Amino acid sequence: MVQIEEDILGRNNEYAAANRRWFGEHGILALNLVSSPGSGKTTLLTRTVDALKAELALSVIEGDQQTANDAERIRETGVRALQINTGKGCHLDGHMIGHALETLRPDDGSVLFIENVGNLVCPAAFDLGEAHKVAILSVTEGEDKPIKYPDMFHAADLVLLNKIDLLPYLQFDVDRCIEYARRVNPGIKVLQVSATSGAGMDGWYRWIRATQQLALIGQ
Amino acid sequence: MVQIEEDILGRNNEYAAANRRWFGEHGILALNLVSSPGSGKTTLLTRTVDALKAELALSVIEGDQQTANDAERIRETGVRALQINTGKGCHLDGHMIGHALETLRPDDGSVLFIENVGNLVCPAAFDLGEAHKVAILSVTEGEDKPIKYPDMFHAADLVLLNKIDLLPYLQFDVDRCIEYARRVNPGIKVLQVSATSGAGMDGWYRWIRATQQLALIGQ
Repeated sequence: MVQIEEDILGRNNEYAAANRRWFGEHGILALNLVSSPGSGKTTLLTRTVDALKAELALSVIEGDQQTANDAERIRETGVRALQINTGKGCHLDGHMIGHALETLRPDDGSVLFIENVGNLVCPAAFDLGEAHKVAILSVTEGEDKPIKYPDMFHAADLVLLNKIDLLPYLQFDVDRCIEYARRVNPGIKVLQVSATSGAGMDGWYRWIRATQQLALIGQ
Repeated sequence: MVQIEEDILGRNNEYAAANRRWFGEHGILALNLVSSPGSGKTTLLTRTVDALKAELALSVIEGDQQTANDAERIRETGVRALQINTGKGCHLDGHMIGHALETLRPDDGSVLFIENVGNLVCPAAFDLGEAHKVAILSVTEGEDKPIKYPDMFHAADLVLLNKIDLLPYLQFDVDRCIEYARRVNPGIKVLQVSATSGAGMDGWYRWIRATQQLALIGQ
């Protein structure tokens, strides 16, 4: 069983490495958005795409077990989106992304958002070739998620602490949540945002811009 | 023996985590420059400091087994530098950096360059709390270094392929060297530079600027 798992992950890493190389050659910034179901990923992504589409070339890969609803929400912004349905699968993998790139063909120098299947466990182990995993954590989920799902918060470079407009109505200790995230990943960044009110979203856009600048530098 | 090594690395990781947290709280970008002896690190750093000191707050920690020559070379630029002599030690460690920070006290929002002891092995294992390891590889060293010292090139996020002004006089296959670096680290960036002629250095400065912007974002 362990052997099979290692083989699967090993093969995935090869596909992910090929994707990463391709992104590097084309100056494409690929971001892998991971979260629990219902964290507000698609709302956050729709707002982000609307805010940045005039200044950056963007495209989106949406992952869900079923339905193309999310890709349709993104397409309404005018940005190209491709839906992957994983069926019984609980995460996207490097091979699926490789195939999606053949169809989507993101522009050189563009930003590709990959919205993973809502799941705080399995997507942590499957590299897609992205530059960064970005974890979206809604304050309605409780501040203990980083220590309950340490693999995910260890794998992510940025946490978007979403739905902060609801903080007045919740028992949620922001400092404790950040402390928990740092415990599993001392270098992790945390931005407090609300995708519905727009609060804090400017920090996320600045992060994307600076990260995209980095994607354009070097071979 | 393995147990002792694990204990030492475990303790180092605690010191490094404390440094990383402190850098994060103060918006300081810490870069750990690693290379073989004689790769041109100090020349590269001196030129970098001269180019950026007007626009960014900078400071430097120099690591060498003996002598304070390198810190003196940096101080001639007008930028603060602190020398650490490791004596018999072949690398800087998290504890040394923590103490150095107490003396050096880098400004909030500044860039701290840490020039490690010239060594392509030991510094790879010792996290200092830096945001990125930057490996300097001189083209006079041969293109096989990434596969001969995979730990270092796996740990680094950026390679500065230095002394490219000497390429006309050498048998050095740049593409093969980059391919070797990618083999051990598919996400690694490679910039071709000459610290003496200045060729390619603008890409490195752009990388520093964008990375420093990221250090200012988030908690």
